[in-house]
Amino acid sequence: MKFFNVINENMNKYIKKHIEDLERVRPEQDRINFLRLDMNENPIGLPEDYFSNIISKITPELIAMYPEPSHLINSLKKYLNVESENIMITNGSDEAIKSIFEIFGADNKKMLAVYPSFEMYSVYSKMYNMKIDLVNYDEDFSVDYLKICEKIDKDTAIISLLNPNNPIGTVYKEEEVIEIIQKAKKNNAIVIIDEAYHYFYDKSFLYLVKEYDNVVILRTFSKLCSIAGLRIGYVVGSTKMINYLEKIRQTFNVNSVGLYFAKSIIDDDYIIDYLIKSEKDGKDYLINSLRNNNYNYFYGNGNYVFIKPNRPIVDIVDDLKHNMILVKKYSTPILADYIRISTGDINSMSKFFKKFLELDNK
Amino acid sequence: MKFFNVINENMNKYIKKHIEDLERVRPEQDRINFLRLDMNENPIGLPEDYFSNIISKITPELIAMYPEPSHLINSLKKYLNVESENIMITNGSDEAIKSIFEIFGADNKKMLAVYPSFEMYSVYSKMYNMKIDLVNYDEDFSVDYLKICEKIDKDTAIISLLNPNNPIGTVYKEEEVIEIIQKAKKNNAIVIIDEAYHYFYDKSFLYLVKEYDNVVILRTFSKLCSIAGLRIGYVVGSTKMINYLEKIRQTFNVNSVGLYFAKSIIDDDYIIDYLIKSEKDGKDYLINSLRNNNYNYFYGNGNYVFIKPNRPIVDIVDDLKHNMILVKKYSTPILADYIRISTGDINSMSKFFKKFLELDNK
Repeated sequence: MKFFNVINENMNKYIKKHIEDLERVRPEQDRINFLRLDMNENPIGLPEDYFSNIISKITPELIAMYPEPSHLINSLKKYLNVESENIMITNGSDEAIKSIFEIFGADNKKMLAVYPSFEMYSVYSKMYNMKIDLVNYDEDFSVDYLKICEKIDKDTAIISLLNPNNPIGTVYKEEEVIEIIQKAKKNNAIVIIDEAYHYFYDKSFLYLVKEYDNVVILRTFSKLCSIAGLRIGYVVGSTKMINYLEKIRQTFNVNSVGLYFAKSIIDDDYIIDYLIKSEKDGKDYLINSLRNNNYNYFYGNGNYVFIKPNRPIVDIVDDLKHNMILVKKYSTPILADYIRISTGDINSMSKFFKKFLELDNK
Repeated sequence: MKFFNVINENMNKYIKKHIEDLERVRPEQDRINFLRLDMNENPIGLPEDYFSNIISKITPELIAMYPEPSHLINSLKKYLNVESENIMITNGSDEAIKSIFEIFGADNKKMLAVYPSFEMYSVYSKMYNMKIDLVNYDEDFSVDYLKICEKIDKDTAIISLLNPNNPIGTVYKEEEVIEIIQKAKKNNAIVIIDEAYHYFYDKSFLYLVKEYDNVVILRTFSKLCSIAGLRIGYVVGSTKMINYLEKIRQTFNVNSVGLYFAKSIIDDDYIIDYLIKSEKDGKDYLINSLRNNNYNYFYGNGNYVFIKPNRPIVDIVDDLKHNMILVKKYSTPILADYIRISTGDINSMSKFFKKFLELDNK
């Protein structure tokens, strides 16, 4: 049965023009049977025995109940050495980004970011009717923080810094970040430090939220922690900042199974160390293989490596896909000659590299 | 370590006054060891063998991957006899409500609802700076739909109808709903028909979205389907309506475990029938027990029953809580003399009633 096409011409009376104009791209589906190296997930997930032990504790009653974030918040406050009123658990860090834009994104004010970076910052800028102000990476894959500072002015409302950045894994120095934060503060702008990839790097700017109330730190369990499907992230910020974000939060914004897994991971140093080592070994393996085969490649501090294939990008990406391997390509000019590979354990990297070598040299 | 109290007085430069003023109530935590009859969840959850069979299919890879709603959408389109572009899966129906307000909630326009009803409609009205226009229930727990019609005018942007209503389980007749929808349409207002409790009642107004593009139907897996912790709901509406809502959706708004459970439930007629029968048997048991013990009670078409206890409300609610049973009390005048009991299987109702009888007559 088809819908009648009764279109009320005035139904969109209250729809904002910038929402009407917003184009959204929907992610590819049915990725389960592929080796997934395109979205910086852990391609194999948590170790089987660790996973089984946690999932065996999930009960029908737990999932029948509305979820309770308090236990994860308690674990996180110890882990992060902050108070519970400085933490908000979010439905992936995506919810955190959307909430910050919903609260602090003002009509026609500017969102400042580097380019390329995580595309959702631009999507949310458009969703909340903001202007997008970008500092481009240079050809050598570096970005000058002074150019970010220079662009901050009274019309800047939100500054997005990913540390390490995605897709290019560059990081900021402490003095650079502080200079940006201080100039932002003078201009009443919020600085988001998105630490989605902080586990792949030994430095965090979390402590800065204790000194600057215009800073929020975003974290996620989707990358190293290997539970992207369970949608758990968190924001750390001043009490005042978290209080604002809490005002617009859905009452039950995160699910019980995600909360249970996230708490188990945070409470267990061993699993985090294990996952860090597993990814590092795989990344080292991939980098060595690329070097030994005279590939042009580069990488930074995230769980991803860029490779310049011999064959045209579209062809190698398609061939890999036909061989059940997903990798990412870019239209951004400075990245257009590369594919990005999310790194995983040695086994995943070996599986990828053998097939890549075969397909790229045929 | 405490936060420095460096408060930037201007940090809230872009914060809207109505957000700053919004008060949010946070739900009670640590309910797991209680018999939970306060939030219309299934107190025991899915049958153990059914649950075990589904959860055994969840793998580390599934939860490591970003979630994919397409399989649940495919099941729902068959189940509902609509097209996939008429469905949006949401993070509980709470996300659906918030999204509708974010899109259609215009400054200083009116949200029209009955009172009492599900409190989040008023919360979201305040969040999106709308005026709240209420039609009160009469003392006999009925509400006159003509009063709803009368209040619809050019300033009405959103009308919320719960069918059955929560907390009072009344339902609307088809001709009443159609009259409301038609008047809303003339005034360019959206009608939300929230069917959170539709499984406890044999009528749905889902087919109306095929005739009226100003109607959206909301459904949830949190009530009968017993997975409130997994946060799965959905919206059904015209292609145009869903297209608007999709524009502001988080890219990955629902989790993989919830999607997997929801699909399994929808694909399995047996479990839905089993859950309907289990709740109905429990509700009948409770109603008979109340009648046999000369209690004053009332109920409608939802999974909840109101009881007028002998003792003062605060005392009996507290005593039940000390005995590990949670029930709901109200400040709303017409409900202030009652407690509301979410109904569950016979065993849960028997456990509740025995303890209630003992405590209420001591």
